[in-house]
Amino acid sequence: MKIITLLTDFGLKDPHAGIMKGVILSINPDVTIVDISHEVEAQDIREGAFLIKEYYTYFEKGTIHVAIVDPTVGSERRPIVFSKDGHFFIGPDNGIFTLLIDEDTEIYLIENKKFMMRNISTTFHGRDVFAPVAAHLSLGFHLSAFGEVVTDPVCLTDIFPKIETDVIYGEVVRFDRFGNAITNIHASTLNTFIKGKKFRITIGKTSFESIDKSYYEKEVTCLTGSAGYLEFAYYRGSFREEKKVWKGDEVTVRVE
Amino acid sequence: MKIITLLTDFGLKDPHAGIMKGVILSINPDVTIVDISHEVEAQDIREGAFLIKEYYTYFEKGTIHVAIVDPTVGSERRPIVFSKDGHFFIGPDNGIFTLLIDEDTEIYLIENKKFMMRNISTTFHGRDVFAPVAAHLSLGFHLSAFGEVVTDPVCLTDIFPKIETDVIYGEVVRFDRFGNAITNIHASTLNTFIKGKKFRITIGKTSFESIDKSYYEKEVTCLTGSAGYLEFAYYRGSFREEKKVWKGDEVTVRVE
Amino acid sequence: MKIITLLTDFGLKDPHAGIMKGVILSINPDVTIVDISHEVEAQDIREGAFLIKEYYTYFEKGTIHVAIVDPTVGSERRPIVFSKDGHFFIGPDNGIFTLLIDEDTEIYLIENKKFMMRNISTTFHGRDVFAPVAAHLSLGFHLSAFGEVVTDPVCLTDIFPKIETDVIYGEVVRFDRFGNAITNIHASTLNTFIKGKKFRITIGKTSFESIDKSYYEKEVTCLTGSAGYLEFAYYRGSFREEKKVWKGDEVTVRVE
Repeated sequence: MKIITLLTDFGLKDPHAGIMKGVILSINPDVTIVDISHEVEAQDIREGAFLIKEYYTYFEKGTIHVAIVDPTVGSERRPIVFSKDGHFFIGPDNGIFTLLIDEDTEIYLIENKKFMMRNISTTFHGRDVFAPVAAHLSLGFHLSAFGEVVTDPVCLTDIFPKIETDVIYGEVVRFDRFGNAITNIHASTLNTFIKGKKFRITIGKTSFESIDKSYYEKEVTCLTGSAGYLEFAYYRGSFREEKKVWKGDEVTVRVE
Repeated sequence: MKIITLLTDFGLKDPHAGIMKGVILSINPDVTIVDISHEVEAQDIREGAFLIKEYYTYFEKGTIHVAIVDPTVGSERRPIVFSKDGHFFIGPDNGIFTLLIDEDTEIYLIENKKFMMRNISTTFHGRDVFAPVAAHLSLGFHLSAFGEVVTDPVCLTDIFPKIETDVIYGEVVRFDRFGNAITNIHASTLNTFIKGKKFRITIGKTSFESIDKSYYEKEVTCLTGSAGYLEFAYYRGSFREEKKVWKGDEVTVRVE
Repeated sequence: MKIITLLTDFGLKDPHAGIMKGVILSINPDVTIVDISHEVEAQDIREGAFLIKEYYTYFEKGTIHVAIVDPTVGSERRPIVFSKDGHFFIGPDNGIFTLLIDEDTEIYLIENKKFMMRNISTTFHGRDVFAPVAAHLSLGFHLSAFGEVVTDPVCLTDIFPKIETDVIYGEVVRFDRFGNAITNIHASTLNTFIKGKKFRITIGKTSFESIDKSYYEKEVTCLTGSAGYLEFAYYRGSFREEKKVWKGDEVTVRVE
């Protein structure tokens, strides 16, 4: 059994995710399709980039992950496919795979028309390009069947925190359903940085001098979330709303 | 493998879609169920009618499509089943299938109690009638097993644009997740109408004298959406909110 | 084929439900996973308790139901597994199973680490404990393999209506997508109470002296909803908004 996962910003009101499933199952009826989310914030490539890194490792190797946040669909932006750690990834070459791609990643352009719908719209490549390519990939085609190698994939340059001698400058990159504010500062970066030192973590007017273990400990907590990134939470409430936090707000970690 | 798709206005908060899946899988465990949307605007039969036409062709022939937007559940409105283009459709006879039904469509009443739940509520026919009928249909029963032929299905009469000599009067029928305003004017109607002529498309105070190809071209675009209907979009924003557009707002296409 | 259902308050924006599916399918690829809802109101254990009772009977016996509304994840609250009516249930021991558990229910603690993820976070037991336990249970392990018997499960004490000689004091426990206000007064309780008597049902300033059969009968209706509980509805509108009703608002049934 092959699994195809879907991450998009198409929302759940429109029939787009359902249509992609129809296209996939028409090509390979034996595939299992798993929705990760269709509620990535509209056109927020960055949010998509962080999410992909969060979920893919929980699937079996061989799983095909389709990720579409694609504000410039219909432009010259390229569709790409690549593999990493035994997983396959398909989506637009617009930076959504920034956190997965490194120098050794062998990326292929999707250009072979025989794996696409006959008529390709300028507005819905999820249906016309990415879904049929995922379905064909699940049938066993090699990556090189889809097109030429891409050596210059688009990567987001401002996605990582800035690390100086005694301070990390990070930011809030997304909110979860409970209003927890999730940053781009990974626990491994944080722990190396503060190891054995006194530190102060600041977001707006709120500061922390220790890391909490779970949400229920205090009213306002600062902890490592389930994806491994530093986050802020408000017990039985929304940190986002209580503290009036916005995406992009600065988060600093200072050591003495 | 048989596929059953579900389109409803039940929402995703309530367990209704999940309950329908339980009912279906209890009768036919081998079926694959695909959610199209459960977020059709509450009780908006018209929106459902346009959506059905948009997705069904992307599934294999033989697929069973259940579509439920059913404000008068529990009344005398009839449950029906029919086939078109090799696909099967099940739902209330309230106009939701207006865009699929023509003179040649052979429609059957759902009245055979042996294909329904033993106790039929007056509030949830998705569970008590439509889900078990879909599951039984997937087992291979013929349409005529469900009931008598229906010769007078309910059709919405105001769903098509009004076409005069030099103007089409259409309207906004729904919005997608991005706030794009989708009209009831199909590209084929539009293209035939404006062929070789100068034209002006107007919605509120906004006018267009050309059709765009994709969303990223300009701030405000007028283009054929993925379902084939004329729509209006706002790049990296919501046309609905920026232009204060409502469902039912008039859209005109004038030629000189 | 085994079915695993998921009920959570994780929402559909975050990848949590998708990650749980990845974990489950990595352990047992042959299972069918059905989403009931991931939109239980955040941290509302009570709402979860009523929902579980509503859907589980519509699945085949042998189905495994995972229910997670877990505000104190990471604390000492216990994870449990039990069976009832041939169905299996997995979730936190915080009262979410109040309406299913009785004296005869044999409940087991989930403590055997070999059925969990290697690293158990303090924030996401859906992924690290409940999903892998559900997957292992679907492979045929006996409940006693997971841990010791629990004899003192947590139950919500204020979940049932208070019944006096001539009045039932109930309350609104949740709203459905249409804004219908659903109470904790079950039809069987109600019918026994009012049998052959004149009665008056009151919520806020609205009263009813009869029970309606379906939503379309009048503008404001009082009827037995699809889950068997007394509810209030507003035809083609939202009772919640029209009548300014809140969760927890008192509902009384008085007989003469």
